[in-house]
Amino acid sequence: MTARLILLRHGESEWNAKNLFTGWVDVDINEKGVGEAQKAAELLKGEGLLPDVLHTSLLRRAIHTANIALDGCDRHWIPVRRSWRLNERHYGALQGLDKAETREKYGEEQFMTWRRSYDTPPPVLDADAEYSQFHDPRYADIPEEERPRTECLADVVARMLPYWEASIVPDLKGGKIVMIAAHGNSLRALVKHLDGISDADIAGLNIPTGVPLLYELDDDMKPTTPGGRYLDPDAAAASIEAVKNQGKK
Amino acid sequence: MTARLILLRHGESEWNAKNLFTGWVDVDINEKGVGEAQKAAELLKGEGLLPDVLHTSLLRRAIHTANIALDGCDRHWIPVRRSWRLNERHYGALQGLDKAETREKYGEEQFMTWRRSYDTPPPVLDADAEYSQFHDPRYADIPEEERPRTECLADVVARMLPYWEASIVPDLKGGKIVMIAAHGNSLRALVKHLDGISDADIAGLNIPTGVPLLYELDDDMKPTTPGGRYLDPDAAAASIEAVKNQGKK
Repeated sequence: MTARLILLRHGESEWNAKNLFTGWVDVDINEKGVGEAQKAAELLKGEGLLPDVLHTSLLRRAIHTANIALDGCDRHWIPVRRSWRLNERHYGALQGLDKAETREKYGEEQFMTWRRSYDTPPPVLDADAEYSQFHDPRYADIPEEERPRTECLADVVARMLPYWEASIVPDLKGGKIVMIAAHGNSLRALVKHLDGISDADIAGLNIPTGVPLLYELDDDMKPTTPGGRYLDPDAAAASIEAVKNQGKK
Repeated sequence: MTARLILLRHGESEWNAKNLFTGWVDVDINEKGVGEAQKAAELLKGEGLLPDVLHTSLLRRAIHTANIALDGCDRHWIPVRRSWRLNERHYGALQGLDKAETREKYGEEQFMTWRRSYDTPPPVLDADAEYSQFHDPRYADIPEEERPRTECLADVVARMLPYWEASIVPDLKGGKIVMIAAHGNSLRALVKHLDGISDADIAGLNIPTGVPLLYELDDDMKPTTPGGRYLDPDAAAASIEAVKNQGKK
């Protein structure tokens, strides 16, 4: 039996557009993002690829994108599960900073290390800082010593995989078409796992906003086609190009 | 310990405004309904009454209302559970018909029997009729012989209560603030149960759209204040008056 998994990165957010580091800051999608979510609905409907269950992060931009995408293909009524383990990477002390200014201030090398190093997190964000979520009630169930205040991609892999194994794989093995609405880095972490991408090579992989990415998985949850298939390959390519250029003025 | 339960009837729908019998037809809320949902968010936020868990029907107008209300009070991330047992009453062969025309065609007595009799359902809707949901995939898990094709309020009570007992009461007993986003008749069925209203007296009870209704419940799930408390009593009174006049030209 082939299981079907749809990955959907949220549409463009207010802070994507402003070129700010977002992380766990709970900004909404903007008008363009709403349009991307509506387009995602059309793509899902067009392929008859209708999700049976949705998993989301606890962040508004993923939840809102999923709500629009599901509503548009008449699947607003499916079961939903949410977890902080699908959240975007916590960007530590960079949250709220301008990407281009950060690049200029710290230099290209440090900037790219923070953005793309597998195991070097940005500086820790103070629990009481303006853009800290340390005291947000939605994270109250995470023990304080485990509650992120910064993360590298390796940290995201480590906190995402237990949710994948415990909550998403059982849905896939139960024959359900699963949609995950999440973020650039939580989806990169999952794709790294699915496709067996090395710690070094994952740096070069970007996930476009708002374009559904379909993985067909065998009984061992290995992709039958490595890298999956974007439902709109042209839009995916254009969006990946735009993500690469973030932080350039 | 006092448990807190918030009942929210969906905002005005496209068919409320057109004065059509809706039942299980999956119409969306209109612009006024969106405004009501936003107002509900303000009321919840104003009282610091923030839901910990949401239960909805499988119908877009309740789901959409809840999404807006929760987003507006920063609770979009809470767990959600959905069940057809919270759906609006199935209006049988009346679904899609104009209320005023139905009143004229069948007369005041028959019209009011269909609308308000406790145990007389409208005629059965053919499974293949235009406004039938009999073959809708979201109801595929209901055995065909139990899948509604018309309902009276007694039928709604009978299918709603098992979900109340099995899924909602445990959340309340676990100390969670529970919000139920549902419909005029599924909420009337619940209020009948909570307040111990007789089969005869429930006919006179209307629930306004979009105004949160708070019940505080003791350990036996009995209201500490019969009838609960609307967070905006003036809006509730005005809306109840409008509901009463439906079907009048």
